[in-house]
Amino acid sequence: MAESKKQLNIAMVGSGFIARAHSNTFHQVGRFFDSPFELNTKVVCARDANRLDRFAQQWGWKEACTDWQAAVSRSDIDVVDIAVPNALHADIALLAAQAGKMIWCEKPLAISVDQARQMADAVRGKWNLVWFNYRRAPAVAFARELIDAGKLGQPFHYRSYYFNSSGADPAKGNTWRYRRSEAGSGAIGDLLSHSLDMAEYLNGPITRVSATTHTFVPQREVDDAVALMAEFANSSIGTFEASRFGVGRRNGIGFEMYGSKGRLAFDLEDMNRLQFTDAADTPALQAPRNLLVNGPEHPYASNFWKPGHIIGYEHTFIATLGDFLQTLARGGEFHPNFGDAVRIQEIMEAVGTSAASGQWVEI
Amino acid sequence: MAESKKQLNIAMVGSGFIARAHSNTFHQVGRFFDSPFELNTKVVCARDANRLDRFAQQWGWKEACTDWQAAVSRSDIDVVDIAVPNALHADIALLAAQAGKMIWCEKPLAISVDQARQMADAVRGKWNLVWFNYRRAPAVAFARELIDAGKLGQPFHYRSYYFNSSGADPAKGNTWRYRRSEAGSGAIGDLLSHSLDMAEYLNGPITRVSATTHTFVPQREVDDAVALMAEFANSSIGTFEASRFGVGRRNGIGFEMYGSKGRLAFDLEDMNRLQFTDAADTPALQAPRNLLVNGPEHPYASNFWKPGHIIGYEHTFIATLGDFLQTLARGGEFHPNFGDAVRIQEIMEAVGTSAASGQWVEI
Amino acid sequence: MAESKKQLNIAMVGSGFIARAHSNTFHQVGRFFDSPFELNTKVVCARDANRLDRFAQQWGWKEACTDWQAAVSRSDIDVVDIAVPNALHADIALLAAQAGKMIWCEKPLAISVDQARQMADAVRGKWNLVWFNYRRAPAVAFARELIDAGKLGQPFHYRSYYFNSSGADPAKGNTWRYRRSEAGSGAIGDLLSHSLDMAEYLNGPITRVSATTHTFVPQREVDDAVALMAEFANSSIGTFEASRFGVGRRNGIGFEMYGSKGRLAFDLEDMNRLQFTDAADTPALQAPRNLLVNGPEHPYASNFWKPGHIIGYEHTFIATLGDFLQTLARGGEFHPNFGDAVRIQEIMEAVGTSAASGQWVEI
Amino acid sequence: MAESKKQLNIAMVGSGFIARAHSNTFHQVGRFFDSPFELNTKVVCARDANRLDRFAQQWGWKEACTDWQAAVSRSDIDVVDIAVPNALHADIALLAAQAGKMIWCEKPLAISVDQARQMADAVRGKWNLVWFNYRRAPAVAFARELIDAGKLGQPFHYRSYYFNSSGADPAKGNTWRYRRSEAGSGAIGDLLSHSLDMAEYLNGPITRVSATTHTFVPQREVDDAVALMAEFANSSIGTFEASRFGVGRRNGIGFEMYGSKGRLAFDLEDMNRLQFTDAADTPALQAPRNLLVNGPEHPYASNFWKPGHIIGYEHTFIATLGDFLQTLARGGEFHPNFGDAVRIQEIMEAVGTSAASGQWVEI
Repeated sequence: MAESKKQLNIAMVGSGFIARAHSNTFHQVGRFFDSPFELNTKVVCARDANRLDRFAQQWGWKEACTDWQAAVSRSDIDVVDIAVPNALHADIALLAAQAGKMIWCEKPLAISVDQARQMADAVRGKWNLVWFNYRRAPAVAFARELIDAGKLGQPFHYRSYYFNSSGADPAKGNTWRYRRSEAGSGAIGDLLSHSLDMAEYLNGPITRVSATTHTFVPQREVDDAVALMAEFANSSIGTFEASRFGVGRRNGIGFEMYGSKGRLAFDLEDMNRLQFTDAADTPALQAPRNLLVNGPEHPYASNFWKPGHIIGYEHTFIATLGDFLQTLARGGEFHPNFGDAVRIQEIMEAVGTSAASGQWVEI
Repeated sequence: MAESKKQLNIAMVGSGFIARAHSNTFHQVGRFFDSPFELNTKVVCARDANRLDRFAQQWGWKEACTDWQAAVSRSDIDVVDIAVPNALHADIALLAAQAGKMIWCEKPLAISVDQARQMADAVRGKWNLVWFNYRRAPAVAFARELIDAGKLGQPFHYRSYYFNSSGADPAKGNTWRYRRSEAGSGAIGDLLSHSLDMAEYLNGPITRVSATTHTFVPQREVDDAVALMAEFANSSIGTFEASRFGVGRRNGIGFEMYGSKGRLAFDLEDMNRLQFTDAADTPALQAPRNLLVNGPEHPYASNFWKPGHIIGYEHTFIATLGDFLQTLARGGEFHPNFGDAVRIQEIMEAVGTSAASGQWVEI
Repeated sequence: MAESKKQLNIAMVGSGFIARAHSNTFHQVGRFFDSPFELNTKVVCARDANRLDRFAQQWGWKEACTDWQAAVSRSDIDVVDIAVPNALHADIALLAAQAGKMIWCEKPLAISVDQARQMADAVRGKWNLVWFNYRRAPAVAFARELIDAGKLGQPFHYRSYYFNSSGADPAKGNTWRYRRSEAGSGAIGDLLSHSLDMAEYLNGPITRVSATTHTFVPQREVDDAVALMAEFANSSIGTFEASRFGVGRRNGIGFEMYGSKGRLAFDLEDMNRLQFTDAADTPALQAPRNLLVNGPEHPYASNFWKPGHIIGYEHTFIATLGDFLQTLARGGEFHPNFGDAVRIQEIMEAVGTSAASGQWVEI
Repeated sequence: MAESKKQLNIAMVGSGFIARAHSNTFHQVGRFFDSPFELNTKVVCARDANRLDRFAQQWGWKEACTDWQAAVSRSDIDVVDIAVPNALHADIALLAAQAGKMIWCEKPLAISVDQARQMADAVRGKWNLVWFNYRRAPAVAFARELIDAGKLGQPFHYRSYYFNSSGADPAKGNTWRYRRSEAGSGAIGDLLSHSLDMAEYLNGPITRVSATTHTFVPQREVDDAVALMAEFANSSIGTFEASRFGVGRRNGIGFEMYGSKGRLAFDLEDMNRLQFTDAADTPALQAPRNLLVNGPEHPYASNFWKPGHIIGYEHTFIATLGDFLQTLARGGEFHPNFGDAVRIQEIMEAVGTSAASGQWVEI
């Protein structure tokens, strides 16, 4: 077929679960989002050569290598995608930035604010993206549209939670996610970071926090659970809770907002739905509307299947990259980027500080 | 306290579960519905004198007697309430009618159309009521208001179901409900009669039916389950299913309606809620609204507690009698009455005929 | 009818919404709960004589008077029921205690810890009850049964909320509920007190709190909303939020608990349901069970209607008093009593202190 | 990368919505299902050359042609995929069979039983598949596992529905779906065929039906809605309803089953969930379990993302083809195939016959 699209050659570092999700995105984005770019899954890097070959074959990477520095520096690479544990993000991003690459990085950006800021400085002027993918669940994007259209009115309460049961088995704890040096934090970086990004996306800047963290399994180095109260610049009150001890829940991130004109609620387990109560309705008909957000007017609905046809987890990544490529084509600023992620890192650090001191901490 | 209300002395026949529900209604209606009448729970009749005394004491009946004919004929009695198995309704109603009493009768009215018609003839000119109480669940009454206001538009589909698990134990079957001579039918009279009353209340007259019945336990005399297709005078299509083999359901009556302007759905297990999708909404906001029907504008909400405070099963009886007494006070015609119940009996009989012949039967 | 029950003559102070709920309870409890006592609604007291007469007639009080001191002191009165604004509880309770009466008091008990303690001291040795009625919603009582049976395992998270929209109209604010001198607090006493009682009932003592309060309407004297983090003696983490700015919600109190063996969740808008995830189930079948708690084995189910028949708001009061009367008959200690309510008052005060200081406060 | 998989070259006929879904499947199946085959999207055929080129480019087809006969007969083609309106299936399938190809065909198989049987005869001995994809929604597949394991017990009721609003606009009706010559039928072929396949997959053979059809818009040639009662070989009773006038629903296919040991329910709008009530549970804990079927033990969960990560519409196609390729590799018989689809066609025809005669029709 005739093909006049600009190729973007990608080097991805990582071969775990999230690297699968990224790989899938690179193959799928062009099917659902029109842009002048064609992604080329050029080279994937990871330590274990044997396992890597199989990964490369399954996920359509043309080459595989165990030397990420070499791959990241190759002149034929346009994009470096970072899909490794948190502590490794900085080295890769800094080298990629030095090599002038476009950079896409898994969340959370870093394991400290200093590191995050250094990374953001390094990518200045280069196109960059952080995979806070849940912003682009259609229900979340539609919530933002409703808020922007004034359908929530003055916000009073922003309530956030993220529960999974990943840490509930006390015997567990040997992976990088439980080591401070590799993960930076526990539930805070793993779960709360998503919640914070979603919160600032929907409700604007957080101005101060008071937090508490708990580690239910004594020998673990990082927080198993975190709870916090927050104030937003728009004067609304926030509460957040994130835990790896949410027995019975596998990936339960959600929010609930109350404003002068209504209520919004979302839970990722029902990803294709948004709850909306419109206080502008006649009183007898005011109720939570259980919106299936795959109608013709909903965000991203025209990109995927016909109205009424459900999408899944992977489509939040595809929508993120689809928007990125379209922004890249027409110019403008893409969010969430490294700058946005620095801010999330700052709040995460304030949460840790507050939990240690028992005091409110300004952001 | 000063008391100028007109006393209505009641004789009730029956002392089972439904007699409890009626008794409760007689005590409670005056607290929630204003009317010029005060109900006096004068005498309760049943066969077993010992058990009856305890019932009378618990439920506040001033007298108890085992001779219902005597009680029903007493000159100081204004109202006869019938709360006994189906086959006994007719004798009591006919004697009460002859004695000039107001008559309130449990559903289904009778065990045959002929019997029902005879009863309806007998009560002509006397105030009468049949306890099809679910019409007055606030959600059902509100559905009717929405339909009357044109919010459903042209109706296309009326879907009805009633599942409980009362017959699912094959060893069961010795009570009157399983004997043709005492019950007339099984799921048809016990469950479907409620569904049919609700259907005609909401969607108007049924014009013809095609039905099938099944008795899963061979030795039983009556139908365990019934399914039918129906046509309504308004050209919509109906489907009905009722079964005592609805394992996992205890009292699951509900309906779903699709019209040109929206959708309505109700399930008694969530009695305080009505689902309503308004196709007049902007498309992006069209969704089932999960209406909690105890707001200030909903039917009967001002009669009971504050907005947001749930009511229960017994309140459907109270609302029925509350409406009856207010109609009695101001004049007019109360529904559902014996005439309405004759019609339900006619449909029930048509259902039986159709099930036997495998043919459509006109009503 | 033969009648050998002991009469308990009641004097109730109050004629508002909650006085209706109490009156209803006095009439209904004997129908659903067996005890050797018969309640006699002897005298109701309130300021406005005209309005009071109508109340007395509607709710079956034999006498009405505007002098509560006289009524409370009458020698033929056995029980004093307090159904007036918070600030008036203490005077009535103290006089009633002095007169040797049994005392039933609406929540929250008082407007300060000192006042509450004085009241608790006064009633020592006398039977007393505080109307924290939501404990006895069958779903809440059943949650407690499951917890006591070890079905939740070690608790990790207790999450509580109470949202209504009572204060969302900024023009509102003239009633006693918005004046500090009469209410003591706003959302804290009105809403959070219920949540705290439910929390300690289900999850045991709270040991410390860190809170924040907000008054969205500047001229109001009391808190419109409160949020707090808590630690429980059993080492679990708590979060609580209560607000009168929960637009779209009318009476939305609920909780969610995560433990090592499962998850429980409840919302009063679905009062007849409890969510339970049993982590002891085979993994493929682990899921929230949407329990309709009116089966034969559920708390209070045998007291009310048949399995599958919904109950409502008023039945939580009836169950409270039913349990009280049965405890009174057989001896033992009834909860929640004034002592329990003192504890709730202490936590409420700690919440206020913490909100003012921004510090954690020990209970 | 090293590549030793056997190539299967595909020719697809069609370029509409369903052709997009098929194309996506061909690219994705190898990422999620291991097999010795690699699919090669060789050539796509459709009438409109301009539109086709764009389709081919977007969906990764190496060639595009307007002469499907030529494409289907090419010696380098292994598989013919049929993604065109119903009336065109037969010609393509017969030519492809004659050319010795493997054939995958969109549902319903044909526009008459005769045609379907001819097609099934033609493909005898060749691998074939019919895209009744909803069987392989994980929740449906898991329902089948539970039934096979005896968790439902003796089935009593099978209830099926399929509502969308595709025909609710009376002005609509010019597409092939509304012409008898091109579609064969309306809601019957479009919607009910899926329901029937799901029913026989879950509950075994249907033995007889009594049906009614309605065309709400007079000038339309095909049925807008169909309702039917059925009997199954296992003695359970079935009801089915399918309509294009389901205002408020976009793709609402679902079922509910009652058996002696429990209840199952599914709705495609909540595709990742299955409701299961286990009557073997202790009575107090019997309730609908709201199963999120993406745990480690659920069908296809290990093929896609991590536990708790939702999948969507497209994954039902991927799972269908994944199973097909694995069956192809190891031998055995794949379902649903042309033979299964002939049976569905027979029931569809019986439904039409019954609707015309008003009589029960044996299958």
